[in-house]
Amino acid sequence: MTTIDDQTEADSGREDDAYLLDRRAVAAILDAVEKGDQAQLTELMEPLHAADIADLLEQIGHVDRESLIRLYDHEFDGEILSELDESIREDVISILAPQVLADAVRELESDDVVDLIEDLEEPQQETILGALAETDRLAVEQAMSYPEGSAGRLMQREVVMAPAHWNVGQAIDYMRSNEHMPDQFYHVILVDPRMHPVGNVTLGKLMGARRTVPLLDLTEEMFHVIPATQDEEDVAYAFNQYHLISTPVVDDEGRLAGMITIDDAMAVLDEEHEEDIMRLAGVGDESSLSDSVAETVKRRLPWLAVNLLTAILASLVIALFEDTLSRFVALAVLMPIVASMGGNAGTQSLTVAVRSLATRDLTGANVWRVIRREVLVGLLNGVVFAVTMGVVGVIWFGSPQIGYVIAVAMVINLAVAGLAGTVIPVMMDKMGVDPALASGTFVTTVTDVVGFFVFLGLAGMVLL
Amino acid sequence: MTTIDDQTEADSGREDDAYLLDRRAVAAILDAVEKGDQAQLTELMEPLHAADIADLLEQIGHVDRESLIRLYDHEFDGEILSELDESIREDVISILAPQVLADAVRELESDDVVDLIEDLEEPQQETILGALAETDRLAVEQAMSYPEGSAGRLMQREVVMAPAHWNVGQAIDYMRSNEHMPDQFYHVILVDPRMHPVGNVTLGKLMGARRTVPLLDLTEEMFHVIPATQDEEDVAYAFNQYHLISTPVVDDEGRLAGMITIDDAMAVLDEEHEEDIMRLAGVGDESSLSDSVAETVKRRLPWLAVNLLTAILASLVIALFEDTLSRFVALAVLMPIVASMGGNAGTQSLTVAVRSLATRDLTGANVWRVIRREVLVGLLNGVVFAVTMGVVGVIWFGSPQIGYVIAVAMVINLAVAGLAGTVIPVMMDKMGVDPALASGTFVTTVTDVVGFFVFLGLAGMVLL
Repeated sequence: MTTIDDQTEADSGREDDAYLLDRRAVAAILDAVEKGDQAQLTELMEPLHAADIADLLEQIGHVDRESLIRLYDHEFDGEILSELDESIREDVISILAPQVLADAVRELESDDVVDLIEDLEEPQQETILGALAETDRLAVEQAMSYPEGSAGRLMQREVVMAPAHWNVGQAIDYMRSNEHMPDQFYHVILVDPRMHPVGNVTLGKLMGARRTVPLLDLTEEMFHVIPATQDEEDVAYAFNQYHLISTPVVDDEGRLAGMITIDDAMAVLDEEHEEDIMRLAGVGDESSLSDSVAETVKRRLPWLAVNLLTAILASLVIALFEDTLSRFVALAVLMPIVASMGGNAGTQSLTVAVRSLATRDLTGANVWRVIRREVLVGLLNGVVFAVTMGVVGVIWFGSPQIGYVIAVAMVINLAVAGLAGTVIPVMMDKMGVDPALASGTFVTTVTDVVGFFVFLGLAGMVLL
Repeated sequence: MTTIDDQTEADSGREDDAYLLDRRAVAAILDAVEKGDQAQLTELMEPLHAADIADLLEQIGHVDRESLIRLYDHEFDGEILSELDESIREDVISILAPQVLADAVRELESDDVVDLIEDLEEPQQETILGALAETDRLAVEQAMSYPEGSAGRLMQREVVMAPAHWNVGQAIDYMRSNEHMPDQFYHVILVDPRMHPVGNVTLGKLMGARRTVPLLDLTEEMFHVIPATQDEEDVAYAFNQYHLISTPVVDDEGRLAGMITIDDAMAVLDEEHEEDIMRLAGVGDESSLSDSVAETVKRRLPWLAVNLLTAILASLVIALFEDTLSRFVALAVLMPIVASMGGNAGTQSLTVAVRSLATRDLTGANVWRVIRREVLVGLLNGVVFAVTMGVVGVIWFGSPQIGYVIAVAMVINLAVAGLAGTVIPVMMDKMGVDPALASGTFVTTVTDVVGFFVFLGLAGMVLL
């Protein structure tokens, strides 16, 4: 029995360092690798879970990674591969000896193999498929026939099912006599003669009931079936919303095709969050800490280029007022404040909207109320900061007009920020575009343009 | 048996509308409420899961909510309360008749009651505790003695355990004869005579084994125990990292105190993400779509105030160069571009760092490599945009000097953005502060100040 507690407890000097791969542990491992000390390496790696080994491989450089794998490859576990970040996975697969890779892949369940190969290049895919037994390969190929990011890709084909007319005794005898039960399962899925799932019985209920009780009397009240073509984001949502543990997946004809368990749904939820947070910041979707400098530049450049265009647009607005600016340099000093406050308030509204759309809390039923609230919030915050900045303007530049101009511009820009921060993501969602993807740029463009235009325009009217 | 499929299938005209509360359904429900038609309301609500009813109550206004609850209260399920957003929960509890509230609360498991009352005010807490049976109340009070956000608050006390020396037959007989088994459980926890958990046996393995097999021969390879004082964020991390399904929780002496199941860990993961994304945007932690205008203003104002201070700081930097600006207004037109590009690049680095710290991918083992990468990425992106803006500067203003100045300022500011975007969150994390919380403001302050200072300072040297 492997326990990771000894290791994590030793590491957790500070409470929130629990589960952090220890720097000394990493150093000791790299030391063993450098010395080529296989025995010591094996001893150091033994307490680590596959997920921790994957993290370790991600955190060290390519050269160390290659030496470590070559020294450790007799013990290389398939699960390490499925835990690895995509950007490192190809590297590790290319390092592994073909026989080691084949052994590692054969240990995995079909859904893990699918997850492993779907992002690989064709030749590496072929290598891995070739290593599988015939039936496993067919299972993987069938899963790959479903669209990327669908329930069909996520499901495992290994399920435990029973005819709906069976009783408890029949189900238990069947399970006792069957050699090929999945490693982990939590429900028996009841199916009708056409293989349509009709109910779930938890193992706990099965275990507590007398042998003569019909299975149909024990089914869970909440029964949820997922179509194989459903988007994995919706699958994760359903697991989280309805507290599902495992759920049958059905094909186009409603026949049982496989099942999805909550641990896979949790991984999807985690990925979706990562995607949202990265997209909101204008970082490429699939970016990873182990990407090279060149890859990172390539991913981030397009977003910065879009930002440059919108920044130039804002500059063109400023250029309209060069005449005003040349007479009142104070305006150049103050104008970034209006734009910056608008950008921040817009980002606040935007983030709330993007997140609420993702959690299905922002719907047709409340969209108008939310827009109204965001605009009102913008107006009220605008008034507070208008008064503040009006006073600052008067004190700093001794000019009531400048105070007045910045105050009015602040109110207008913060109300616009609330409006744009909500309407833009809602519209993108309606058009079927991920609202996290580019809304941020649009919103700050609006608040920059409006901020500079209103502030400098008003100043031109009032001061000239 | 309740199936929600009929309803969601009808709704999903577009694929990603699956699970979205239908606007027509909401309208029909509100219509029944307005007419006071209890029979129709009950019929419309019947197919809805408690989580969907909670969403519905969050999406409608206070007046509709009150009418709906009064009309529906004979069927009000305790689970609706635990699914409700905190901001609406107090409102709903104050609407419910005391008897309905008491009945609703008594249906819940101890961990759900804890989750329900921990954010309530004292008097509402008392009301709910008073409604519970003696043993349940003690269980809840004991859980409440653990710190907020700890594993002790998250765990349920209902566990299924067996002495480690039992065999399969003894365990099954015990479960058959025990009337009070939890609704959902997936493992039998083996304990030694001092009540220390020593292993987990899945129900699937138990079911497949002969009666004479010792339980210790069936334990899972991966066995993980969580201290009751552990932070719930670490609990969620462990479930996601090690694919745990349910895990025993132990007290200070290592004795079994309860267990945590993956669905609760998934909910924590979801909340932690929400917190990160909201904090990064400078929106209060616990904000919700159903907050009132006043609450929302109150939550967002402090963040905007901090931003105002930093914006004024940036303006003070600009004010240093009023003289230069008054001679070359073109500088006022171009200066926001340098600051804006720096702010964006800094946010990119920052988001990657915050997210990597949350997933424990950024550690002492790779922090220097990551900082080096971010600075290099900033430099390279800086060079690309320096060339672009240099050319734009020359074409737009016909001045090679302006082109040269903006190019150099761009390179410096983007490298600084990469540095600040990584170092600031890492330092905050070292100091025990959530890096998502205020890093954004610090990073954009740095890029604004450096951007304006370098651009205007260089311009002063080159042009004057």
